[in-house]
Amino acid sequence: MPFCADQLARLEPLWDAMLDHRFLRETRDGTISDERFAVWMRQDYLFVEAAIPFLAALLARAPRHHWEPLAGAIAALQKELKLFEERAQVVGVNLRGAPPSFTNHAYIQFLLATAFRASYAEAYTVLYTAEKAYHDSWKVVKQGIAQDSKWYPFVENWAGEEFAQYVSYLETELNALAEEAGPSERERMAEYFELTTKYEIAFWEMAATGEGWPAT
Amino acid sequence: MPFCADQLARLEPLWDAMLDHRFLRETRDGTISDERFAVWMRQDYLFVEAAIPFLAALLARAPRHHWEPLAGAIAALQKELKLFEERAQVVGVNLRGAPPSFTNHAYIQFLLATAFRASYAEAYTVLYTAEKAYHDSWKVVKQGIAQDSKWYPFVENWAGEEFAQYVSYLETELNALAEEAGPSERERMAEYFELTTKYEIAFWEMAATGEGWPAT
Amino acid sequence: MPFCADQLARLEPLWDAMLDHRFLRETRDGTISDERFAVWMRQDYLFVEAAIPFLAALLARAPRHHWEPLAGAIAALQKELKLFEERAQVVGVNLRGAPPSFTNHAYIQFLLATAFRASYAEAYTVLYTAEKAYHDSWKVVKQGIAQDSKWYPFVENWAGEEFAQYVSYLETELNALAEEAGPSERERMAEYFELTTKYEIAFWEMAATGEGWPAT
Amino acid sequence: MPFCADQLARLEPLWDAMLDHRFLRETRDGTISDERFAVWMRQDYLFVEAAIPFLAALLARAPRHHWEPLAGAIAALQKELKLFEERAQVVGVNLRGAPPSFTNHAYIQFLLATAFRASYAEAYTVLYTAEKAYHDSWKVVKQGIAQDSKWYPFVENWAGEEFAQYVSYLETELNALAEEAGPSERERMAEYFELTTKYEIAFWEMAATGEGWPAT
Repeated sequence: MPFCADQLARLEPLWDAMLDHRFLRETRDGTISDERFAVWMRQDYLFVEAAIPFLAALLARAPRHHWEPLAGAIAALQKELKLFEERAQVVGVNLRGAPPSFTNHAYIQFLLATAFRASYAEAYTVLYTAEKAYHDSWKVVKQGIAQDSKWYPFVENWAGEEFAQYVSYLETELNALAEEAGPSERERMAEYFELTTKYEIAFWEMAATGEGWPAT
Repeated sequence: MPFCADQLARLEPLWDAMLDHRFLRETRDGTISDERFAVWMRQDYLFVEAAIPFLAALLARAPRHHWEPLAGAIAALQKELKLFEERAQVVGVNLRGAPPSFTNHAYIQFLLATAFRASYAEAYTVLYTAEKAYHDSWKVVKQGIAQDSKWYPFVENWAGEEFAQYVSYLETELNALAEEAGPSERERMAEYFELTTKYEIAFWEMAATGEGWPAT
Repeated sequence: MPFCADQLARLEPLWDAMLDHRFLRETRDGTISDERFAVWMRQDYLFVEAAIPFLAALLARAPRHHWEPLAGAIAALQKELKLFEERAQVVGVNLRGAPPSFTNHAYIQFLLATAFRASYAEAYTVLYTAEKAYHDSWKVVKQGIAQDSKWYPFVENWAGEEFAQYVSYLETELNALAEEAGPSERERMAEYFELTTKYEIAFWEMAATGEGWPAT
Repeated sequence: MPFCADQLARLEPLWDAMLDHRFLRETRDGTISDERFAVWMRQDYLFVEAAIPFLAALLARAPRHHWEPLAGAIAALQKELKLFEERAQVVGVNLRGAPPSFTNHAYIQFLLATAFRASYAEAYTVLYTAEKAYHDSWKVVKQGIAQDSKWYPFVENWAGEEFAQYVSYLETELNALAEEAGPSERERMAEYFELTTKYEIAFWEMAATGEGWPAT
C-alpha cells in the first residue's frame, strides 16, 4: 500500500478524532460564536505566516524537481494571507490582536525545527500531513455550512478543487519519497505523520478553548 | 544595566511565578509523590538528551571563543544523563517509560528551531535563560529539602557551585553578545528571554499535572 | 557613509580588477569565441540554479518584510533559467554538458554555507554583492557589445533597468541591516563583501580559462 | 560489497592520484622545503579548526548513537589543534600568518554546506572520506619519513593506530548508513565520496603550489 494510504489507515482513530472535533462541527452547524472563530482566525493567520519560512527551509534542501512546486506553495500562502486579511476586514477582526498561543507557537517551532534538522522526506511528511488534515477538516465543515456564511471563503479555500489537487500532488510526491526511503527513514516518516496529526488536533483544541500559555 | 540583569528585572513577576511553582515547593517540602517526581524525571531526561543537538547546533554557528565552552557543555549534559540513569536505577524508574509530553516536545522544538534559525545571540539567550531558570529553581528546592532525600543529587547538580559558575559564565557572555548587538536584535533577544521563561513555567506545570497531548 | 558605498570605496581596486577582467572585455568587444562563452553559459546556468536554494535558505531566516521580495527574487531566477535555456537552444549549447567546475562548485558551497550558518545580515551581504557585481560587470559589456549580438539578452538581463532597480533595493536593505548591526557583525559583513568579490573574480577567471578541478 | 569498499574500488584511479601527490612523496622523502611545509601547516590548521563546526552541525542532526562518538571527534580535533600549535612553536611557524587559501576556503564551505543541507548520511560520507583520505595519505608519508623528522608527530597522528581505529569505526557506521539508505540517497552518497576525494587532491595541490586566490 502506498505510504500515505497506509498511514491514514494506521492512524484512523486519531484522524477521525480530529475530523470530529467540536470546533469543526460547530463551524459546520453555524453554532460557533464570532468571538471563538476570531480566536482561530488570529492564530491561523500567524500559523500560515510561519508556514512561509517553513516552506522556504524545505525548498532550500529540496530535490530539483520540487523547487517550482514549493515556490508555488509559498505564493499560495501569500494569497492565503490576503484571504485572511480580506475576511478580517469584512468581519472586523484584528489579525494582529493576539500573540501566538502556546499550542500555535509550539506547532510553528515543530515545523521549523523539522525543516532544518530532519531529513527532507521527514519534513515533507509534515507538510503533506498538515495540508491533508486541513483539506479533510474543512471538507467536514463544507458538509453543512451555509454557502452565504461569512466563513465560507475559508471553506472554499481548503475544501475546494484547487487545494484538493495540491494535496493530491503532495501525496504522490510523498509516496515516491517513502518508496525511495530505507526502512528506518520510513519509520521516522510514520512518526512525523502521527506527530503532525496530534499537533493538528491540539490546534483545533486551542481554537475551541482559547488557551493561552500554561500557568501564566 | 547589563542585559541579563535588565531582563530579570523586567520579567520579575514571571520569574517569581516560576520559582513559586508548586512542583518546586512540593519537592522542597518533601510532599511530592514518587509517581509525580518520576513524571518529571522521565520528561527531563528526554529534555536533557535533546539539549545535546541544541548545543551542537549552537556550536556549529558559534564564534571561535565559544567552541570549547560549548563542547564542554555537551560533555556536561552527557554526565547529567548518567546522573538521571543512576538515580532512575536507585529508585526503579524507567526513563524510557513515556514519550515526550506535549509541552516537552514543544519546548524541544523551540530550542532546535531557534538554534538553526535565529541569530546566534538570540539562540544563546535561550541557552542562558533555560540554565539560569534551572539554577534558580533548584535553589528554591535546596532551601528545604533533606540532604538525605533521594532527589538531592538533582538539587546538588543544578543548585551547586559548579553549575553556578557555569551560569555565571553564560551570563557574562550573553551580556557581551547583547552589548555588541544592535537595538532590533537586542529586542528580539529580550523576547526570547521571555519566551524561554514561559516554556520553563509550562514545563513545571506539565510535571505537576502529568499532562499528555491536548484532546487525545 | 552608508555601508555599501563604504565597502565599494574600500574595495575599489578589487572591484576594478573584476570589471576589467578579460572575459568581460572580450565579450564587450565581440572577440570572445563561442566555445569560451559556452563554458560560461553552462557554468552560470548551474550557478543560477543553485542560487534558488540559497535564496530559499535566506528567506527561511529573513525578517517578515523581506519575505515577499525574496520570494520574488526566486521567481526572477526561475525566469533567468528560462533565458539561459532559450539562448542555449538558439546557439546550440547543451547546458547540462558539463559538471560544475571547481570554482563554480566552491562558490555555490560558499553561498549555501553562508545562508545556513552566518547571520542573516552577513548572508544578505553575499546576496547583494553578487548581484551588484553582476550588474556592474554586464554594464561594462553593454558599453561596447552590438545590440544584435546573440549574447545581448544576457546583457539586457543584468545591465537593464529592472535589474538596476532590484540591486538598488538590495542596497537600501543592506544599508539598513548594516545600520542596525553592532560593530563586530558589521566587520564580518565587510569580510563577506570582500570574499564575495573575490569569488566573483574567480568565476570570471574560470570562465576565461575553462578550468576544471585542480590536479585531476 | 559494503559501500566504502565499493566506492574505494570505483574511485581507485582518483584515490591513487591522491596518494601519489608530490606533496606526500616529498614529505616522505624529506625533500620538501620548510617553507612549503609551513604553507600546508597554516592551511591545515585553519581546516582542522573549521572541521569543529562541521562536526557540530553533523551532531546536531545525528541519530542518538552517534552523539558520543561525534562529541569525541570534536574533542580529538581540539587536541589536534594543540599538536599544530606545539609543532608550530618548535619550528617557528605562525599559524595565523595567512588567510585561508581559495582551495581551503572552498573545501571548508563544502563541509559546512553539506552538514547543514544534505542528508545526514551524505554529510557523514564527507566526514568518512576526508578522514580516510588523511589516514591513507599519511600512511604513504610514513613509509619513508625519518622517525626523528620534525614532521613525524603529524605522521603519527593520522597514520597511527588510534586514528586507524577511528577511521575503521567511521567506515562501519557509513556502511550501515548506506545499507539503510534507498538507492537515490546511496547514489548521492557516492557523488559526495567522489567530490570529497577531489577536494582532498585539490588541497594537496594547493599545499604544493602555495596558491592564493585566482586572478587576485
